[in-house]
Amino acid sequence: MMKSLEPATIAFPTPIWCVGSYDSEEKPNVMTIAWGGICCSVPPCLTVSLRKATYTYGCIMEHKAYTVSIPSVKYLAEADYFGMASGKNVDKFAATGLTPVRSELVDAPYVGEFPVVFECRLIHTLEIGLHTQFVGEIVGIKADENVMGENGLPDMNKVETFTYDSTSKNYLAIGSPVEKGFNPGKRFMK
Amino acid sequence: MMKSLEPATIAFPTPIWCVGSYDSEEKPNVMTIAWGGICCSVPPCLTVSLRKATYTYGCIMEHKAYTVSIPSVKYLAEADYFGMASGKNVDKFAATGLTPVRSELVDAPYVGEFPVVFECRLIHTLEIGLHTQFVGEIVGIKADENVMGENGLPDMNKVETFTYDSTSKNYLAIGSPVEKGFNPGKRFMK
Repeated sequence: MMKSLEPATIAFPTPIWCVGSYDSEEKPNVMTIAWGGICCSVPPCLTVSLRKATYTYGCIMEHKAYTVSIPSVKYLAEADYFGMASGKNVDKFAATGLTPVRSELVDAPYVGEFPVVFECRLIHTLEIGLHTQFVGEIVGIKADENVMGENGLPDMNKVETFTYDSTSKNYLAIGSPVEKGFNPGKRFMK
Repeated sequence: MMKSLEPATIAFPTPIWCVGSYDSEEKPNVMTIAWGGICCSVPPCLTVSLRKATYTYGCIMEHKAYTVSIPSVKYLAEADYFGMASGKNVDKFAATGLTPVRSELVDAPYVGEFPVVFECRLIHTLEIGLHTQFVGEIVGIKADENVMGENGLPDMNKVETFTYDSTSKNYLAIGSPVEKGFNPGKRFMK
């Protein structure tokens, strides 16, 4: 039996992405978001949604660039903090002891200790409502050599990242493979 | 030591969302996507990215509506199939035996057997490149009463959904809570 619920932003799973940017004085800032995703393959793009009230909003608008650093679970507390404090009042890198690294490709910093980083050049801005959606072209990727898989790409099990469940407000682990993609569905092919 | 990689669409985790729509003859169609996410809180919106070549693209453009049905892992093979076959050539509901249910709120069908459904009215279309991004306002949510949690919202552990890792091309389980959100980071607050 299906129940009807009021509209709400409870679709899942959501990513935990730490968005890096510089402010107008080149102070590095980082903010955790759960509302984003890959949005195009050619050019490769990812999107993040932010409220205008956030400090990161103005930073991205000014520098036309941002990074997305993906935390492993050992940095869960730091990522959680990045989503609560505002760069307007505090230097979040200094507060956590993590290292802002200047991207060589875009005008934005990333978190040096996090295992996988996407460097994005802003190519679209879409005002939706309370949130503005930034679309960034992925112009480079950095990955710690310790999380690389045999195929030359980051191995999510080694990255040990996590997801956010906005219904329970818990961070959830991402577990073991359940099946290979583009295979189990073949049994419905005629 | 960080390695530099070529731009690619390997940010993670990605959702497994089954996008329901009607074609011009009111045939229900459904397509699995991994590129999407929540993108605004007021109004509550979610975005999905599709290639113009997909059958769903034309369906959404015509009806200005779509649904997102979230599969539990018991329907992994069906969801996998929905991402491989095209509604141009086949009735995917008939092929899998799943039930298209007409939304009462938007001009699109959803998958009757899946535990959580979002009903969306198209409010923005953004051409990015190979992919077009559709932004849909969530005007209603349906959830199976068997997956409801104590807070009156779907419980992700009961839904037993999964995620897709585009580096390994595996579907991955979403596991147990690791920490409560907006709490562990408090230790960095001064």
